[in-house]
Amino acid sequence: MRIGAIEAGGTKFVCGYGNEDGFIEDRISLPTGQPDQTLDEVIAYFQDKRVDCIGIGTFGPINIDPASPLYGYVTTTPKEGWARYPFLRKLKKEFHVPFGWDTDVNAAALGEATWGAAKGSDSCVYFTIGTGIGIGVYTEGKLVHGLVHPEGGHLLIRRHPHDEFVGSCPYHGDCLEGMASGPAIEKRWNIKGSDLGTNHSAWDIEAFYIGQAVTSAILMLSPKKIILGGGVMHQKQLFPLIRTEVQKNLNGYVSSEALLSDIDHYIIPPGLEDNAGLCGAMALGLQAFIQREIDE
Amino acid sequence: MRIGAIEAGGTKFVCGYGNEDGFIEDRISLPTGQPDQTLDEVIAYFQDKRVDCIGIGTFGPINIDPASPLYGYVTTTPKEGWARYPFLRKLKKEFHVPFGWDTDVNAAALGEATWGAAKGSDSCVYFTIGTGIGIGVYTEGKLVHGLVHPEGGHLLIRRHPHDEFVGSCPYHGDCLEGMASGPAIEKRWNIKGSDLGTNHSAWDIEAFYIGQAVTSAILMLSPKKIILGGGVMHQKQLFPLIRTEVQKNLNGYVSSEALLSDIDHYIIPPGLEDNAGLCGAMALGLQAFIQREIDE
Repeated sequence: MRIGAIEAGGTKFVCGYGNEDGFIEDRISLPTGQPDQTLDEVIAYFQDKRVDCIGIGTFGPINIDPASPLYGYVTTTPKEGWARYPFLRKLKKEFHVPFGWDTDVNAAALGEATWGAAKGSDSCVYFTIGTGIGIGVYTEGKLVHGLVHPEGGHLLIRRHPHDEFVGSCPYHGDCLEGMASGPAIEKRWNIKGSDLGTNHSAWDIEAFYIGQAVTSAILMLSPKKIILGGGVMHQKQLFPLIRTEVQKNLNGYVSSEALLSDIDHYIIPPGLEDNAGLCGAMALGLQAFIQREIDE
Repeated sequence: MRIGAIEAGGTKFVCGYGNEDGFIEDRISLPTGQPDQTLDEVIAYFQDKRVDCIGIGTFGPINIDPASPLYGYVTTTPKEGWARYPFLRKLKKEFHVPFGWDTDVNAAALGEATWGAAKGSDSCVYFTIGTGIGIGVYTEGKLVHGLVHPEGGHLLIRRHPHDEFVGSCPYHGDCLEGMASGPAIEKRWNIKGSDLGTNHSAWDIEAFYIGQAVTSAILMLSPKKIILGGGVMHQKQLFPLIRTEVQKNLNGYVSSEALLSDIDHYIIPPGLEDNAGLCGAMALGLQAFIQREIDE
């Protein structure tokens, strides 16, 4: 089969297609412009591709409630022209195939559970830690939407005792995103994170915050894998520091070998690397295709 | 149909049966003794009841992983005789009907989603706040198990600025349970919570902590309802205080009328009241019965 995929980002769109093994056969990249124009280019790309389904993992916020009249819309983004835009509807008019539609982080979580670092698992939590912090939640074989969708980037956290940074979140000040996103690191140290040495105490503080968020994910969701992606997590020295923080926080309370002796295989980087976005969108498309088969 | 139910607690077992509308037709209560003896009494009760299925919501920790050889066992409880006891297996030998098996808090969450305060919703989080703090998580129409099961009672929280209590959790000191359980309130004020006046500042501090936990649940899981039960929540003055804390914490970030203008119907007490435990177990039994129908 041929699975179409759209990774819709605020600066670029990646379109492509691949097969049910997660192998990408073709892709193109487009700059994100005005929505009508951008989607016309997307439609032109897929016109002769004869895909069996299309998955869309997109920037947001978006409406992912199938019962809502605004399902498939971008909702309140500040990105010019995209707020209240009927993204999914425009594509559905052109292609009569099953469509998967979800947030980019939920797509990444599903992609990792389908072909990546959590392959074969029926649950994982995916954190992306970069310009912002987002989470995708996959549990008991389902992506979590609920009322809106998880927004774990804004968890309240305890302040590190040696950190006086006020926090950069316009809503919450010193929430997780306000303290641990890429821009927060840069504001705290007056230098880009990527220019700090790997031994800088900045990473201990960063691990302290991310470790709390990971601990909260374990306590609230008990996922089978936790995947940490995004630009900040290119600092690979963070992984052992975060694992140590999580074990310190839990203090042996949750009795599972995955947390006690095998945490190196529990809190892990994405397996799909540069293909995470497109593979995630493909996984959404595949899921929609399978669901259609079940429904019929 | 006739749905059997076992509400297995550390001090008493309640057995009963009812119908698919959640109506309880009969019940008995037994003191929790040694497991073989207690379960013999349970078996004797159901012997002539001709139930179509049995649901068990139990104290724990228990193994709820169907793939594990220890599925259906109580695991590490300090309760004498019950650690590593094959609870479910003993009953399955006697009754050849579908069995539901889960934690007492997951049972309560499912009961509330089936017949109670979250009726008709495909997601809710149930907090029980009493001697300990536990959570049951129901999301996208499924109870969450994952690696072990959620343990949201031990969330790390920020300390209230006017609270110097060290915390009562033997594992984490000042985690949620260490600061906000019934025993924590009693240790902090040297008086039982039920003897504090309803205007005591204790309840502001309590709401501060529970409000953080509810905020974390919203950010990690985006549930459609949050239900707060357990002995501490008999202090009804807590509900408006907690709602105010949650709105203060979120600060308008999650754009949903349920949180912004309708929070009185979002953070709510259990609808099943004194029947919550038994109805929850019935809901597990009904779910197992329906699943068997689908599988066959």
